[in-house]
Amino acid sequence: MIKIKGLYFDSKLKYSENISKPVPGAGEALIEIKLASVCNTDLEIIKGYKSFQGILGHEFVGIVREAETENLKGKRVVGDINIGCNQCSMCYKGLPNHCTNRKILGMSDKNGAFADYITLPEKNLYIVPDNVTDYEAVLAEPLAAALQIPELCHIKPTDKVVVLGDGKLGYLITQVLANTACDLKVVGKHSNKLKRFERYSKVALINDLEEAACYDMVVDSTGNEQGLKLAQKLVKPRGTIVLKSTYSSVAAFNPSDWVVNEINIVGSRCGPLDGALRLLAKKYIDVENILDNPCSLKHYKAVLFSKQDSKPVFDLTKDSV
Amino acid sequence: MIKIKGLYFDSKLKYSENISKPVPGAGEALIEIKLASVCNTDLEIIKGYKSFQGILGHEFVGIVREAETENLKGKRVVGDINIGCNQCSMCYKGLPNHCTNRKILGMSDKNGAFADYITLPEKNLYIVPDNVTDYEAVLAEPLAAALQIPELCHIKPTDKVVVLGDGKLGYLITQVLANTACDLKVVGKHSNKLKRFERYSKVALINDLEEAACYDMVVDSTGNEQGLKLAQKLVKPRGTIVLKSTYSSVAAFNPSDWVVNEINIVGSRCGPLDGALRLLAKKYIDVENILDNPCSLKHYKAVLFSKQDSKPVFDLTKDSV
Ligand SMILES: [Zn+2]
Ligand SMILES: [Zn+2]
Repeated sequence: MIKIKGLYFDSKLKYSENISKPVPGAGEALIEIKLASVCNTDLEIIKGYKSFQGILGHEFVGIVREAETENLKGKRVVGDINIGCNQCSMCYKGLPNHCTNRKILGMSDKNGAFADYITLPEKNLYIVPDNVTDYEAVLAEPLAAALQIPELCHIKPTDKVVVLGDGKLGYLITQVLANTACDLKVVGKHSNKLKRFERYSKVALINDLEEAACYDMVVDSTGNEQGLKLAQKLVKPRGTIVLKSTYSSVAAFNPSDWVVNEINIVGSRCGPLDGALRLLAKKYIDVENILDNPCSLKHYKAVLFSKQDSKPVFDLTKDSV
Repeated sequence: MIKIKGLYFDSKLKYSENISKPVPGAGEALIEIKLASVCNTDLEIIKGYKSFQGILGHEFVGIVREAETENLKGKRVVGDINIGCNQCSMCYKGLPNHCTNRKILGMSDKNGAFADYITLPEKNLYIVPDNVTDYEAVLAEPLAAALQIPELCHIKPTDKVVVLGDGKLGYLITQVLANTACDLKVVGKHSNKLKRFERYSKVALINDLEEAACYDMVVDSTGNEQGLKLAQKLVKPRGTIVLKSTYSSVAAFNPSDWVVNEINIVGSRCGPLDGALRLLAKKYIDVENILDNPCSLKHYKAVLFSKQDSKPVFDLTKDSV
């Protein structure tokens, strides 16, 4: 049995070079991982969110090494992380992302991309255009999550939009929204982080923000329940609040405010990878200011829990077993 | 000075026959009220919601007695209850219902329809078609509130929809939604109230309901925060929760559920009176099972606080001063 290296989580995180190489099931391809980046959800899982057991990681770019479809072999790909059952009503409606029996790469019943190899259904894969670098491609998944906002909501060039949160997802969201020509502002807590947003948007420190209900759309990417509280104060009557934050805490709200002001609240999660690859191929997205220098899997401790503004990336081509 | 009768609220409710007849301002018409029905919001105002002081009532049908527009005089009308300032950005965008400086008939800075006469801007008025009875017309306002659901949301004939609440608003909402051909169910607490819904919809007692997330749309007309809690359990991923309830209590929610399942929450309030009149003119709406027998204003105590399933209606043509 061929052994591979990987970051395995089982109530705690372990680096191992003794993991069995995965074997593709029916309809699946085997993918050799080149780069895999770290998402906030990975850190939440390490803290106990989702009680997952297995190899972490769901943002990746890799090369197809085995596939039923001849044309896929050797291709550089990214992949949709949700694996539907193909049998339920959500799958039937073309929404496998919402299949209640779904497996999720590196999150639920499926080993993830912090390893030399993964398997994924061929239909989950998207071939990466040649002019997209590995460093760009590894961000296709979080960029797709940002693109889920225009996928679910109509944003007009005349809309006044504010993004709450100056983190990495907020930075991708801001770049996506700036493309719509809307009147855009980003609100954050860190003047140093806000600097990089200035190319795309007006910026404001949260303490300097006037809390007037003047925005057509408020996007919450704060990662905590204070985001929705603030969004409620900033959104115009008939406006839209887009929620991109997942967290475990609950908070008290009076939904009557949403009724009287006819607010629209839109939850939004994973998005279109094909759209993400189109933007990356057109060089519309700055990834330089998002990703860390690549790190080998073996040295994960040095980067995984550092409080940096940028995303750690594992380079799986280093430290070969 | 001519005196009229009315129901005046000033921390408590008083019947008076000594109220000054209102004088139309610029652009306003004087309307003689024929019928005015009682809304749940009136009862909430009596309990202290909104700290309003003045004549109550906002559901009415009446005859225009004075108007700048000659063509309006003598016409039977219903009216939009929101009076915008004509100067703010919401008014400018054609959304006077959301003007932050708005007056609201019988609710905020404007004497209401539980009186012989009201004044309203001419542009708020809708002429009632001849084949619509007074008893139908007086329900145009709550029917318009029900029509605000299809005004804000796309409901498909293949959608599975559930209405929570077997009250009067729930009954109008059910009739409106049944017109879309959607697969409709009403959930209530009272088997006697649910009887009248059976013409339009499947019905279920709340205790008999299987709490599966299988509905494309859930409409909350329960009037309390339990409605949204239940809606969250019933709505499908990518589904819509429509909120029609206003109440003063707060409740704890974890918005992460809305993110993961990409739920859309839509607050909805006043709606299109012209659409309501079209449905009434086509005799598409059963009002028989909604309205009480008409009562004179003088005898308001007998009906206003009765726990009936039907709506009290005041007939202003009785008990002339
Ligand atoms: Zn499925
Ligand atoms: Zn206004």
